[in-house]
Amino acid sequence: MRIIEIETRSREELIDITSLIAREVQAMGIKQGGIIIFVPHTTAGLIINENADPSVKRDIIMALGRMVPDSLPYTHSEGNSPAHVKASLCGHCLYIIIKEGKLCLGTWQGITFCEFDGPRRRRVFLSAISY
Amino acid sequence: MRIIEIETRSREELIDITSLIAREVQAMGIKQGGIIIFVPHTTAGLIINENADPSVKRDIIMALGRMVPDSLPYTHSEGNSPAHVKASLCGHCLYIIIKEGKLCLGTWQGITFCEFDGPRRRRVFLSAISY
Amino acid sequence: MRIIEIETRSREELIDITSLIAREVQAMGIKQGGIIIFVPHTTAGLIINENADPSVKRDIIMALGRMVPDSLPYTHSEGNSPAHVKASLCGHCLYIIIKEGKLCLGTWQGITFCEFDGPRRRRVFLSAISY
Repeated sequence: MRIIEIETRSREELIDITSLIAREVQAMGIKQGGIIIFVPHTTAGLIINENADPSVKRDIIMALGRMVPDSLPYTHSEGNSPAHVKASLCGHCLYIIIKEGKLCLGTWQGITFCEFDGPRRRRVFLSAISY
Repeated sequence: MRIIEIETRSREELIDITSLIAREVQAMGIKQGGIIIFVPHTTAGLIINENADPSVKRDIIMALGRMVPDSLPYTHSEGNSPAHVKASLCGHCLYIIIKEGKLCLGTWQGITFCEFDGPRRRRVFLSAISY
Repeated sequence: MRIIEIETRSREELIDITSLIAREVQAMGIKQGGIIIFVPHTTAGLIINENADPSVKRDIIMALGRMVPDSLPYTHSEGNSPAHVKASLCGHCLYIIIKEGKLCLGTWQGITFCEFDGPRRRRVFLSAISY
């Protein structure tokens, strides 16, 4: 298992980590198989979405804010329940197929780390399977 | 890796692809293991839900439309931000266990391709692990 | 493949199943690899979230109820469409990395079974990969 460290800079932030993952896949020397990407936090998650136009990331954060408003009658005393809900909706693990040493992503896809309770120091776990 | 091609017919459409996947699993000759199903698009996703009553698919599309309304102040210039948000909520990869050559799904479960910005020609990546 | 049985007690309930999964991983004797956790139902799902403060589970159920209200004009005759939508949003499969015989989860993370149409007898499928 390998661990990537990420420093987030805002309370809510979507960060494209595709190139970080691709570099690790290359370093691990996996040619054929898959990689599991796992976020070990409860107020951060992982999605796949567009890596080209940054406005998509802004729109996702905005739409999630409408779906899970800060104003609901939450009971969790730490005050970060919306972040917990958003992280659960996004999910925490991805499985990406690897072929000829490359991540099998679509043209516009980026692996996106989702911070919902930053800024914080975060980690991402990677585990590769060769087959 | 195998690739399935799907032709969607509406802007929003949920398509049961269970039998397509089952046929590929059989063709690959996997007896014990698992299959990764991956959608390489940013405005389409993948969920598991009921394959029996088509009204469930309609209700899911309707509820997602209420959660992620077209009327929000999106900034992405292509005008399809709701599709991006919905695809991220659904997710892009599934891992289904295979036992004795069969997909281990529940009685009512169907593997469901989710189109949110069609009609389009779409692809689904498959990768099987034998163990 | 192993199967865990769960008895849910309410219509909506989030149940921490981390220790059940950890026990199975130990029984299977997996030291290095991963485990696939799969919920074979259409009105129940699987998320990862906080296992410490039970108020987080309550807040997630409440926020999902606001996102997917019972009052929408659903057409599915069984009357449990909100449960189908919530299950699809949560998802049905998780992949957890195993290292030295232990689940690689974050400090606060718990593997959480999500009941949205209980009380019922439910099942969880487990499949481990050693590598």
